[in-house]
Amino acid sequence: MALWKSPVGGFVDTVLRGVGQVLLQNNPLSGAIFLAGIFVSSWVAGLYALLGTVVATGTALLVGVPGASVRQGLYGFNGTLTAIGLAAYVTRGPALVGYVVFACSAVTIVAAAIYNFVNSEHVPTLTAAFVATAWVFLAGLRQFGALGGAAALTAPRLPTRSSSGASTPTPSDLLFGFFHGFAEVMLQTSVWTGVALLVGILVNSRISAIAAAAGSLIGFGVAWGLGASETTLRGGLAGYNAVLTAIALAGLYYLLSYRSALFAAVAAAVSVVVEGMFGTVLAPVGLPTLTAPFVVTTWLCLFAASSFTRLHAVHPEDATTPEANLRSVSRRWDSLTPRNAGTR
Amino acid sequence: MALWKSPVGGFVDTVLRGVGQVLLQNNPLSGAIFLAGIFVSSWVAGLYALLGTVVATGTALLVGVPGASVRQGLYGFNGTLTAIGLAAYVTRGPALVGYVVFACSAVTIVAAAIYNFVNSEHVPTLTAAFVATAWVFLAGLRQFGALGGAAALTAPRLPTRSSSGASTPTPSDLLFGFFHGFAEVMLQTSVWTGVALLVGILVNSRISAIAAAAGSLIGFGVAWGLGASETTLRGGLAGYNAVLTAIALAGLYYLLSYRSALFAAVAAAVSVVVEGMFGTVLAPVGLPTLTAPFVVTTWLCLFAASSFTRLHAVHPEDATTPEANLRSVSRRWDSLTPRNAGTR
Amino acid sequence: MALWKSPVGGFVDTVLRGVGQVLLQNNPLSGAIFLAGIFVSSWVAGLYALLGTVVATGTALLVGVPGASVRQGLYGFNGTLTAIGLAAYVTRGPALVGYVVFACSAVTIVAAAIYNFVNSEHVPTLTAAFVATAWVFLAGLRQFGALGGAAALTAPRLPTRSSSGASTPTPSDLLFGFFHGFAEVMLQTSVWTGVALLVGILVNSRISAIAAAAGSLIGFGVAWGLGASETTLRGGLAGYNAVLTAIALAGLYYLLSYRSALFAAVAAAVSVVVEGMFGTVLAPVGLPTLTAPFVVTTWLCLFAASSFTRLHAVHPEDATTPEANLRSVSRRWDSLTPRNAGTR
Repeated sequence: MALWKSPVGGFVDTVLRGVGQVLLQNNPLSGAIFLAGIFVSSWVAGLYALLGTVVATGTALLVGVPGASVRQGLYGFNGTLTAIGLAAYVTRGPALVGYVVFACSAVTIVAAAIYNFVNSEHVPTLTAAFVATAWVFLAGLRQFGALGGAAALTAPRLPTRSSSGASTPTPSDLLFGFFHGFAEVMLQTSVWTGVALLVGILVNSRISAIAAAAGSLIGFGVAWGLGASETTLRGGLAGYNAVLTAIALAGLYYLLSYRSALFAAVAAAVSVVVEGMFGTVLAPVGLPTLTAPFVVTTWLCLFAASSFTRLHAVHPEDATTPEANLRSVSRRWDSLTPRNAGTR
Repeated sequence: MALWKSPVGGFVDTVLRGVGQVLLQNNPLSGAIFLAGIFVSSWVAGLYALLGTVVATGTALLVGVPGASVRQGLYGFNGTLTAIGLAAYVTRGPALVGYVVFACSAVTIVAAAIYNFVNSEHVPTLTAAFVATAWVFLAGLRQFGALGGAAALTAPRLPTRSSSGASTPTPSDLLFGFFHGFAEVMLQTSVWTGVALLVGILVNSRISAIAAAAGSLIGFGVAWGLGASETTLRGGLAGYNAVLTAIALAGLYYLLSYRSALFAAVAAAVSVVVEGMFGTVLAPVGLPTLTAPFVVTTWLCLFAASSFTRLHAVHPEDATTPEANLRSVSRRWDSLTPRNAGTR
Repeated sequence: MALWKSPVGGFVDTVLRGVGQVLLQNNPLSGAIFLAGIFVSSWVAGLYALLGTVVATGTALLVGVPGASVRQGLYGFNGTLTAIGLAAYVTRGPALVGYVVFACSAVTIVAAAIYNFVNSEHVPTLTAAFVATAWVFLAGLRQFGALGGAAALTAPRLPTRSSSGASTPTPSDLLFGFFHGFAEVMLQTSVWTGVALLVGILVNSRISAIAAAAGSLIGFGVAWGLGASETTLRGGLAGYNAVLTAIALAGLYYLLSYRSALFAAVAAAVSVVVEGMFGTVLAPVGLPTLTAPFVVTTWLCLFAASSFTRLHAVHPEDATTPEANLRSVSRRWDSLTPRNAGTR
């Protein structure tokens, strides 16, 4: 489209890719569908998502972050999430807009710092900058009086342990839990947001969409097996980290194979336990887990990559979609195979 | 022995070395004696130790971790400890067996990730993967209902501050505390386990056995000086991290010298304070300290190695026993000395 | 001065530079003025500052840390702060002297370990070793009975959230808050200490003095905007991290420019939020924040340096004062410019 070639169109493209990168999709159409999914749940959240993406991207340009990574939306998605995250837990009002702008400029510094840490190990930053920055700006507020600081975080949305004993979830629980597992990635609890997120992934990669769906089911199943409450299951609270972990490991940062698919499934299951750990550890502090379980689980699996000779890691800068990763490798193999040797 | 050359024998050898590596002894006989020591205290703990070592080693083979490090037991010992650790704090039952298998496959991923982090700095992973994984799988459980999750960890085995004022320990306290300081490495409270662990070290390295004994005494003494309760002292709770720290630093990862022995003694003393820190920090969360103080203290001493020109660090891949390290260095010095120059 | 050429004089010089490095000033005169500022507030604190600097420096010499970095005071300042920090929170008495000596030998190991971590990324250690060691030795004490361990830390000096609603600070609050913002770097609450610290910076670098003053005002202003209580504002508790962050980023580790000055101002503002975060996170544990917010904020800004092409980072080993950094760069540019090309 010619639109993307104009500066304004380019910026719109960058912002939409930024929203898309929240679920690891470097695709403006995915981003637009994700954004629509947020607006369906809450137009305020949608506006904050836009604001956060724009501010974080703008800050990156201001301090001179190399343009290529900015244009892929890699300096936007942490802003998207930081803005939604603050809007979800802090009393809304004009002051919050200023605070979100402040936080979304800071998140770019944090993202660049984490990038320089993990990139030498060929590991992507994931949503680590969002988690760190949102924790700082949420916890920081509690020491001060503004923005209802003292009242903030009174209702952390952590999975809570079952008080009424383990109950068998109904098909309705499974349906809601499945789509909420997507929606919670954007901190929303709406089936329609979940549907939009799944569709947004599907338009970019069928493998990633299947991985994400499997991740949501694994999260639901493991949490059920561990005795999670109906609220946790139906709310998708055990699913969103498994969704992200499955997308990241099944084909994107590890080349797809039966072994890596199994590996990704185990990792998605582990992410549920890690989420429980964060729930326990953060309870005395009163902070939400956000996507920390996804970051920790996926980082561990990727930092370990060079020891796992039977799994093939994909360099973050080469990773696009599971399908493209496979094509790129088969092309390289073709060029290495002397198939025309006989014609010489 | 021909047994070790068969696949089954080789696997048994690997598993026993895995148990041996819990106390940094790459020796199947040490491992067998350690294992016997656990069985003496509790046959359930012994079975879990075996299960954990087997699962962690098997997972490493499945994902293709290079065989040499697996055969040295380096992917087993974290499984040993993770299994014992979960069995010590979680309500036992058939479900726990499944949970332990889950945790002991995860610990291999964690170990590989930590290895890739610290190996570039020539620092060994120690028991960091066990500590991280056990914390995750213990804390994770508390958010869910299964396995008595809510009830788990009600009685953390942390050193507790003296309520009855500082009392002078009796010779009996010293005797029990000395051997419990060994036994607590395997999360047991049995003098016979302690004796077995000391003997198991002795068959592999006399220097390490002396270092470990000195470590247990230093731990006891420092905790006494800081006013620890009789329960802490007699239970060996202030000793086990000092035991491990002393083994690691006195001759194994630093070449033995008067200066490095003094350094190791100071580090063993510091590990007691670090243990107190973890007790305070983990109290609100309700997690046990495990061997985190050993890992943190020893890592600090080893990460600092390149700045300490008067101490000679040994690369983890070359470190075998304090005695062999010294021989290896004197051999290298011999080969550098032109002693045959006159005969040419 | 000939005095500095004698061994004793050299050691005095090293110790004074150590005190100076607390505020990033490699200058014995600055150190002497800082020390005088501590003595004015409390002669006990002054003596502990001297003891800590001497012990930490001596330990570094004992283990063979390369002399050049020791002579610049880089192994002294963490000892200064650790000693003052323990003396501020622990019941004083003869036993404390021994405990401080113990902690100040440990801080040198911690400093060397952190150095080896961050130096490869061209990032200075800042006061991270002090923060880590003081936390360990404070929290460790709470598990034991000695040194009034149980009673220690009953009154953490964290900024507390406003109970009486946001009040407009008076000019007197601003005056006290401004100078206390300096004094709190040395854990003192005295205007005269604040004046001495500002003068001590001024004799070494006018730019750093201006940056520090701006940092103290920014800290005051941001905390006021976020609704901090009068006690926090007047006590300078929101200022000391902003002071240090501003000194580090405005000209010292980033070459001074309009853009980097703005960047430093934003970072100083962020440090206030980070301080609030530490207050919330450390509250359940009962530990003071110390200078952790400065370390975290400044590290993030420096680890990100290689991504920020419009800001020019200065390598820690080349960083002296903002003025000297600018001269050094203009000299290099001069030598690159072929200004004499025509005369050849």
